[in-house]
Amino acid sequence: MKSRIVNRRDLQFQLFEALDTGSLTSRPRFADHSVETFMGAIDTALDIADEKFAPHNRKADENEPTFDGQRVKLIPEVKEALDAYRAAGFLSAVRDYDEGGMQLPVTMAQACRAVFAAANVSTIAYASLTLANANLLTAFGSPGQKQRYVTHLLTGRFFGTMALTEPQAGSSLGDITTKATPRGDGTYAITGSKIFISAGDHDLAENIVHLVLAKIPGGPPGVKGISLFIVPKLLVNQDGTLGRPNDVALAGLFHKMGYRGTSSTLLSFGERGECVGELVGEPHRGLAQMFHMMNEARIGVGLGAVMVGYTSYLHALDYARERPQGRSMKTRDPQARQIPIVEHPDVRRMLLASKSYVEGGLALCLYAARLVDDQNTSPEEEVRREAKVLLDLLTPVVKSFPAQYCVEASSLAIQVYGGYGYTREYPVEQFYRDNRLNPIHEGTSGIQALDLLGRKVTADGGRAIELLGRAMARDVAAASGIEALRAQASELRGAWDALRSVTRRLAAAGAEDAERGLANASVYLDAFGLVVVSWMWLRQGTAAARALDGAKGPDADFYLGKLSACRYFFRWELPRTGAQLALLESLDDTCLTMKPAWF
Amino acid sequence: MKSRIVNRRDLQFQLFEALDTGSLTSRPRFADHSVETFMGAIDTALDIADEKFAPHNRKADENEPTFDGQRVKLIPEVKEALDAYRAAGFLSAVRDYDEGGMQLPVTMAQACRAVFAAANVSTIAYASLTLANANLLTAFGSPGQKQRYVTHLLTGRFFGTMALTEPQAGSSLGDITTKATPRGDGTYAITGSKIFISAGDHDLAENIVHLVLAKIPGGPPGVKGISLFIVPKLLVNQDGTLGRPNDVALAGLFHKMGYRGTSSTLLSFGERGECVGELVGEPHRGLAQMFHMMNEARIGVGLGAVMVGYTSYLHALDYARERPQGRSMKTRDPQARQIPIVEHPDVRRMLLASKSYVEGGLALCLYAARLVDDQNTSPEEEVRREAKVLLDLLTPVVKSFPAQYCVEASSLAIQVYGGYGYTREYPVEQFYRDNRLNPIHEGTSGIQALDLLGRKVTADGGRAIELLGRAMARDVAAASGIEALRAQASELRGAWDALRSVTRRLAAAGAEDAERGLANASVYLDAFGLVVVSWMWLRQGTAAARALDGAKGPDADFYLGKLSACRYFFRWELPRTGAQLALLESLDDTCLTMKPAWF
Repeated sequence: MKSRIVNRRDLQFQLFEALDTGSLTSRPRFADHSVETFMGAIDTALDIADEKFAPHNRKADENEPTFDGQRVKLIPEVKEALDAYRAAGFLSAVRDYDEGGMQLPVTMAQACRAVFAAANVSTIAYASLTLANANLLTAFGSPGQKQRYVTHLLTGRFFGTMALTEPQAGSSLGDITTKATPRGDGTYAITGSKIFISAGDHDLAENIVHLVLAKIPGGPPGVKGISLFIVPKLLVNQDGTLGRPNDVALAGLFHKMGYRGTSSTLLSFGERGECVGELVGEPHRGLAQMFHMMNEARIGVGLGAVMVGYTSYLHALDYARERPQGRSMKTRDPQARQIPIVEHPDVRRMLLASKSYVEGGLALCLYAARLVDDQNTSPEEEVRREAKVLLDLLTPVVKSFPAQYCVEASSLAIQVYGGYGYTREYPVEQFYRDNRLNPIHEGTSGIQALDLLGRKVTADGGRAIELLGRAMARDVAAASGIEALRAQASELRGAWDALRSVTRRLAAAGAEDAERGLANASVYLDAFGLVVVSWMWLRQGTAAARALDGAKGPDADFYLGKLSACRYFFRWELPRTGAQLALLESLDDTCLTMKPAWF
Repeated sequence: MKSRIVNRRDLQFQLFEALDTGSLTSRPRFADHSVETFMGAIDTALDIADEKFAPHNRKADENEPTFDGQRVKLIPEVKEALDAYRAAGFLSAVRDYDEGGMQLPVTMAQACRAVFAAANVSTIAYASLTLANANLLTAFGSPGQKQRYVTHLLTGRFFGTMALTEPQAGSSLGDITTKATPRGDGTYAITGSKIFISAGDHDLAENIVHLVLAKIPGGPPGVKGISLFIVPKLLVNQDGTLGRPNDVALAGLFHKMGYRGTSSTLLSFGERGECVGELVGEPHRGLAQMFHMMNEARIGVGLGAVMVGYTSYLHALDYARERPQGRSMKTRDPQARQIPIVEHPDVRRMLLASKSYVEGGLALCLYAARLVDDQNTSPEEEVRREAKVLLDLLTPVVKSFPAQYCVEASSLAIQVYGGYGYTREYPVEQFYRDNRLNPIHEGTSGIQALDLLGRKVTADGGRAIELLGRAMARDVAAASGIEALRAQASELRGAWDALRSVTRRLAAAGAEDAERGLANASVYLDAFGLVVVSWMWLRQGTAAARALDGAKGPDADFYLGKLSACRYFFRWELPRTGAQLALLESLDDTCLTMKPAWF
């Protein structure tokens, strides 16, 4: 069933033909690696995903976490899968050898994560949250905190969470009311409630380390008064042994439409006034610290959305190849044999659309992961700096494009299956339910749109968008030299110019009236995403066109498929930006001027 | 909670201001009615929907039908709701007075059905299927069949199903293998399996009347050899009393993603060789008979999709008005009070999009229902004939536009609720799951696209599309006289001309190569739908603009909302047809030429 988790050939192509991940081995940090060790990691991930993750995906959906008043219980397969994942070293994949890590590039670690997410997105979430937690503490924790927490997070002895959201605040983090009062011994007394905390309670590890945003009384109002605290479920002694239970109570479990294997909790801190938290770094720096992690966290969500869409697509593809129904329009004979539905043009349309979304989305996530690697390990300072700028710019797109289009791939998979796809006897309806979370968590698509248009494209005098334009121009130039891609190259250039012009127009409008300039930010985000993913397809098209010459058999088929999907994206998807950009250019105020009383 | 089921003011506007349903009372059949009696029926529906249907919508989702080996059991609230519905006369709403009916126009009956569908789509399905069944038997059954079946279907003593689909045939009805062998006494022995039969078994009525498509051996192959049979669960004696159980076995229940309150069954006919069926009408006319009912059945599905989207939208609207979060961009003070999220432009965008989809979809369904009335009861033969032609043309759009855009309204409702919307503690996630069935049943959207482009627009030398153009032109002319709508009127004229030109191009291409001409039929259907619903919005805009003059308070707000939604649809939705029509015009063959091996 591995072939329904992810197309290994595609991963190989994207990593080593389109993205040249192999070149990373020339950097000292990755010198012991090779394309073979990289693919070895992927193959290990595929084996474990296939044997331990995919088999309980449905079972975890049907048996969501329960709370008996004492403990949250999960089905045992979740722990078995995460034990195998941990034993294979994936928790510390990118860490230094002397920390017990594999020193894999982030690109490769994300590619491995992609495999697990496709197999079982709600089980891998426990590990992803633990990693995000460990990364944040690695960046900002004190040496003692790293010793007492990060070490154990990386071995999986402790698991972690990120506890940001509160019932009354939602996306408006400045309005959180969780309080952290100094206890006089350097620690803080935490009181307050956090909602929708994924993996907030479970029986998978000895301890759970919550990273909690809270306000120290007397600090500045709004987001500037937010600080970050470590709040373990069980207190941790200096030597790493566990102390008394901290005053953290599970106040409730949420029952979600999908993603059911991941417990979603309402946590109550300090009900008895005995919840101890440790400040991370300086006071009032909590949001900045969180934002430091946001790029990777949002790549994570984007990648999760891609991979649920990806496995949806592969399931639909297999089904379409096997399911006979109807006949070609050329055969009017009702007694002729039925053909597999993949032969019907409209089914191919659905599959090709899905392929273009999920493989385009994967290319984007891997490109972003590569930017993280460049930011961290490029030998050239200029490259490091530029990678960070580009990554900041692309992050909202990396998060939101898959959360829109790869959910659509899950919906199309249901459509390909027809009535069967709507039943719980087949897996695709779960993918659709699971994937629908992604436009919501880690910043809704609306929040991403404001981040992109209100902050990222205008930051630093528009330097980021200029850098992006230059990166695109290089690929456009390369593609222009290939006969089969000349038209697409020119279309991308035109779309980019139009997008830049609209960007200037919106920036000017926003300078006069922020609300007017940002009113249609969601349309801008969508158009931006379509242009960026067209670029990702042009890059893939270029790699495929070059390799096609001389390729045979399944390899040639694979490259022809890439070229078809590239063509599909340029002919069917990119042209939609025309109407979007015209709407933006007109500063349409239909939504802005609609009064609540008129609904 | 009635206000979250449907906006009564909108129903009133659509029926009596935009559509002039009141004029039907000048027809002899409806002479005893008035706008007041019509609205009285709506109010009765609203009361029953509110008291008996909406309250168990979630419970039915959580307690889907079970089978204990003997009987299928539903929660008792389903029967209570349907009893109230039946007692109020809705089962025979359109029937003659002397049949115990109310002689309501189909338009009004559909408007009432809309209310029930919004409140609980899976409970009303039992009644809708029973009505469809009774209508088919009324049209084609013998006097004896009408006596023994229709009478009891209309009182609700019997319930009905439509049993078309088979496991190996799906959308390809010509490939069904259920067999009907003459038993020598005028009846037939039925053998075969039917899948996804909604309401195929339950404990709601004394008997269940299956209408089964089957083939009489020796008939023509394919769809031309299909006949229609009455196959009751319990045999019915001449005097209407019940005889022995027929040989119809429940072979399984399907477990669906949504629409869970409606049992979905696998039925096995004639396992013991004792399944008795009665032929309806002539042999080999089964498909034509079914098609006779298809228009109304597909309006029913479209309307169901609209109304689940409609209630989704109303829930989101209420939530957006109540939920405080964040501040206006004009207020930078983090200590200012939070504002209700409906004040954020992006939330208004989601609500306005939803409003435009669901109210536009409702207008379309009611317009189609009015065509049924005109076809049945217009005093002018020309009007009757034209109504039928227009209805045939519009049916695929009436079915598919809501199945795409009103599912999107359900998705947007989740997005407005944010994290809460994704939990089962709030109702919108169920609406999303329920609504996802609609692009699948009663002919998938792909099938509708082939029906529209491959059959309807070319039938009779394109007469239908000419009629539609004329109907639109009348409304365009009226709107052109209104300053606020002049631009929209001209845009609709332009879009229609472009659509006609593309239609000719595709017809010409299809005449040469059917597969090429129809390859992108789904895009054509989408563009067609956007143009038609723009027209529906222009009609509503016209009625609103005229009424606005002199309107005050909530009435004025209501009309301004209609004008805003009209403007939204023309500025945000209709322009998408530009890229679609260009793609169609180019006869793009990307999907057609994609080879299965390339995926």
